[in-house]
Amino acid sequence: MKSDIEIAQETETSPISDVAAKLGIPERYLEMYGSRKAKVDYNYLRENPSEPGKLVLVTAINPTAAGEGKTTTTVGLGDALSRMGKKTVIALREPSLGPVFGIKGGAAGGGYAQVVPMEDINLHFTGDFHAIGAANNLLAAMIDNHIHQGNALGFDARKITWKRAVDMNDRALREIVVGLGGKVNGFPRQDGFDITVASEIMAVFCLSTSISDLKERLARMVVGYTFDDQPITAGQLNAQGAMAALLKDALKPNLVQTLEGTPAFVHGGPFANIAHGCNSIMATNMALALGDYTVTEAGFGADLGAEKFLDIKCRLTGVRPSAVVVVATVRALKMHGGADKKQLGDENLEALEAGLPNLLQHVENVTGVFKLPCVVAINRFPTDTDAEVALIADRCRELGVNVALSEVWEKGGAGGAALAEEVVRLCEQESELEFAYDAEAGIADKIEAIAKRIYRAEGVTIEPKVLKEIAKLESLGFGKLPVCMAKTPASFTDDAARIGAPRGFRISVRDVKVSAGAGFVVALTGSIMTMPGLGKSPAAERIDVDETGRIVGLF
Amino acid sequence: MKSDIEIAQETETSPISDVAAKLGIPERYLEMYGSRKAKVDYNYLRENPSEPGKLVLVTAINPTAAGEGKTTTTVGLGDALSRMGKKTVIALREPSLGPVFGIKGGAAGGGYAQVVPMEDINLHFTGDFHAIGAANNLLAAMIDNHIHQGNALGFDARKITWKRAVDMNDRALREIVVGLGGKVNGFPRQDGFDITVASEIMAVFCLSTSISDLKERLARMVVGYTFDDQPITAGQLNAQGAMAALLKDALKPNLVQTLEGTPAFVHGGPFANIAHGCNSIMATNMALALGDYTVTEAGFGADLGAEKFLDIKCRLTGVRPSAVVVVATVRALKMHGGADKKQLGDENLEALEAGLPNLLQHVENVTGVFKLPCVVAINRFPTDTDAEVALIADRCRELGVNVALSEVWEKGGAGGAALAEEVVRLCEQESELEFAYDAEAGIADKIEAIAKRIYRAEGVTIEPKVLKEIAKLESLGFGKLPVCMAKTPASFTDDAARIGAPRGFRISVRDVKVSAGAGFVVALTGSIMTMPGLGKSPAAERIDVDETGRIVGLF
Repeated sequence: MKSDIEIAQETETSPISDVAAKLGIPERYLEMYGSRKAKVDYNYLRENPSEPGKLVLVTAINPTAAGEGKTTTTVGLGDALSRMGKKTVIALREPSLGPVFGIKGGAAGGGYAQVVPMEDINLHFTGDFHAIGAANNLLAAMIDNHIHQGNALGFDARKITWKRAVDMNDRALREIVVGLGGKVNGFPRQDGFDITVASEIMAVFCLSTSISDLKERLARMVVGYTFDDQPITAGQLNAQGAMAALLKDALKPNLVQTLEGTPAFVHGGPFANIAHGCNSIMATNMALALGDYTVTEAGFGADLGAEKFLDIKCRLTGVRPSAVVVVATVRALKMHGGADKKQLGDENLEALEAGLPNLLQHVENVTGVFKLPCVVAINRFPTDTDAEVALIADRCRELGVNVALSEVWEKGGAGGAALAEEVVRLCEQESELEFAYDAEAGIADKIEAIAKRIYRAEGVTIEPKVLKEIAKLESLGFGKLPVCMAKTPASFTDDAARIGAPRGFRISVRDVKVSAGAGFVVALTGSIMTMPGLGKSPAAERIDVDETGRIVGLF
Repeated sequence: MKSDIEIAQETETSPISDVAAKLGIPERYLEMYGSRKAKVDYNYLRENPSEPGKLVLVTAINPTAAGEGKTTTTVGLGDALSRMGKKTVIALREPSLGPVFGIKGGAAGGGYAQVVPMEDINLHFTGDFHAIGAANNLLAAMIDNHIHQGNALGFDARKITWKRAVDMNDRALREIVVGLGGKVNGFPRQDGFDITVASEIMAVFCLSTSISDLKERLARMVVGYTFDDQPITAGQLNAQGAMAALLKDALKPNLVQTLEGTPAFVHGGPFANIAHGCNSIMATNMALALGDYTVTEAGFGADLGAEKFLDIKCRLTGVRPSAVVVVATVRALKMHGGADKKQLGDENLEALEAGLPNLLQHVENVTGVFKLPCVVAINRFPTDTDAEVALIADRCRELGVNVALSEVWEKGGAGGAALAEEVVRLCEQESELEFAYDAEAGIADKIEAIAKRIYRAEGVTIEPKVLKEIAKLESLGFGKLPVCMAKTPASFTDDAARIGAPRGFRISVRDVKVSAGAGFVVALTGSIMTMPGLGKSPAAERIDVDETGRIVGLF
């Protein structure tokens, strides 16, 4: 069986300038990065307003070790719509370098449903993440420099919330002490690095609709507090202009293509726990302006990714999906039903029946809470039996939702024809998105609404010190922001071990913090890792490049 | 008077693809980064060997606060040679982001002698420095991960020499403690960040002639020592392949142009103290292959920059300059002679006479030690008097060296005609480079040769613990490497305050370390800053970008 990188390297694609031309983008808005990648100037949207096409959101069940193939399905669905003659554009997140050198591998789809050049996309791509890291670290340097030069703004060095960032899995940087070595090196204090995708700048970047919007958001970011607990912002340090200068090219969406030539914007990639987990609104808006159909994905399962896509991104930017695809695999559902990971190749209707409620709850949330048309895509494996697939279809039909088999990993767009047809049918239906909560409600009420309506918790437990922090955020004027839940992706609950569709649990909120630039309040339900580590045998030890520059061993 | 950025933004230039076409580079070797920057594939050199042209090295007196305009002269000389009808290519270092946001401003020339697009060149450019930083930090993460996972190689955590890197002026990161927070975060230890340009990878990158050479050098880098003082290399961690994969695009030289359309490779930028301070050999080789004349510069004054260019880069790579330009200003020479910085606009022949020995010693080193043809370029200011210029010319004539006035800042290439004519004349002369020392000599002897012959010290003082370290490096097989002096650029001595041309001093060597991948032993003469800080009023507070993406306030 060929590896993803082998398939990608042996497939011939057109120059990206031809892809852009077919989309009707005038050449003057294109900035080439070699012949296979281009950035599209944001001035294109300002100068060429157009009616947006239909938006299709791809989401999934709670992820398991068995994998569900969400990105692969997104890419394959895009190709399948193209094959139907629909003018289709895909919008995806950019991968982080951290997992590439760790163990996860790339994030550009798989098999015959990939975006290319996958080596570039998985390495530096067009440099966006480095630009975000540089902006993050410029702000950090300006904070410590401000304190070193006299601390006119009155930072309480114990309450600096802005961390440094690097796009690498580096556990040694999670908790550090900086400023050692005497007076010339500043004031010692506790600090830490997040991986770049966890920087608030990543979330800001992905929600900004223009340079001026970007600058306003950057200026609003809270970087620390004074001794009497007043927030200090990046704007008070006059950092937003230089940060925006560092981000001005990064903000232009990156155009690439699938193996079958469907245009794809791959742009931005915020965490789906402490941030909202989907590609930039700049890329989504550009895709909607250029295509009749835009297929996009949200991070993690639908309880986190789709909920935030809808309650945060849609609420803040006005975009609205016409249909939602929930991706599942028979294997993953059997894991949710308690099957052993080593026996997923055996037919097991009992485990499947036991695991199905995980899928059904996500489907009910889409149709019942958010009121959107929904289809379930089964990313098919050779070991899946007809009886297993029929069982899923039966249960979904009871909810009024169809199931489509997807074989895009093996067959590319041809393997997604049934899914594409159902998506087109759903997009013809009238729908009106309803949010899971009212933004005007209090922070605790919003958290409770998500916990009860989406997770089906019995309630929310908030420690007294967190209630005090919530009161503080509300008094500072952050009470009307949407809530961004930081929770384990593995479960509807805040306990990763409780797979399936648990009932009778409560959600514990351990902390809240404001991302004032992004425009949401993060509610943390347990310790969320914002800096991964490398494993015992990191992928980095096997990646190589030959004399001509060809990458080998990436996956 | 217009600012550099205003001049750069109002000058129309041809698309970089036209510049490449005029040089005869086939399109398949070009990777565009927008319309004004391109990378040229290293496979071009492998597949199209050609006779190299003449190389002209631009160096300078010891820098003062008055500035000497070395990059501006390099760019203007290139334009002047082009105006003479010579097929000319310029090779420069890439600027670091640190100084851009600090106080120094950009490093792409000035006035009408600039390389463009200067905003891009001074910001992320084509991402090379971010790639180098990522490779540096991947290696750092792999070291701490190796220790965390069992430390099979036996690192003594107190003797890890590999530091982390960020391309930012950030004094708080100079001395830090990492790995705090308990077992899951690894072992706590002292660490620190260097600015990216100080990473050994930058030096390795600039001395690598191919991907395989790059990988071999990366593998040789010493990252720490065992408890019994045996070196541990990046190769033992299997890190060189993934690092090279991160660097594969960065290694391709960046082609831009001057305001007058002369092609310029701007590629690589190692420190001129702990490293060798000149652009990549890949860019130099490409420029030599494409042009009849290549004009390049070396960092700091000739005592550091030119000495290392000749004794390290030329020795290791085989390139040879045909002529050397020593840049000086009347103002800076008056400072070397003791004049007050506020009175440099007044004629002061006494101060000039007193400061001239600084220039003359550099000239004597070029002609007497290195045996190369030399011309002095006076970067003229409106306040310089004819008598002052005549005095310099007289003293240089006594050494058999001509002086040419340069007015390229104000007039572009037209202001460098006299200099270009003299350079062409010198390039017609036969010359054979002699090195300042024999690489086969011992490390201490090589240091002494540089100190006595170039700096004119009476001798070298080496502390016993440093002698022990030298013996260790020699026993490990690093004794035959050239020596890279880390010394203040402000003086021939190791004391920045002793300007002019001091005599009767000794050089103190405080430490030595090996850069085994780059291929030199660094001799440190005092504390060398490898991580700058921001100033009281950082430039970052004034840099901005408008709604269309235009940068303002960069300088």
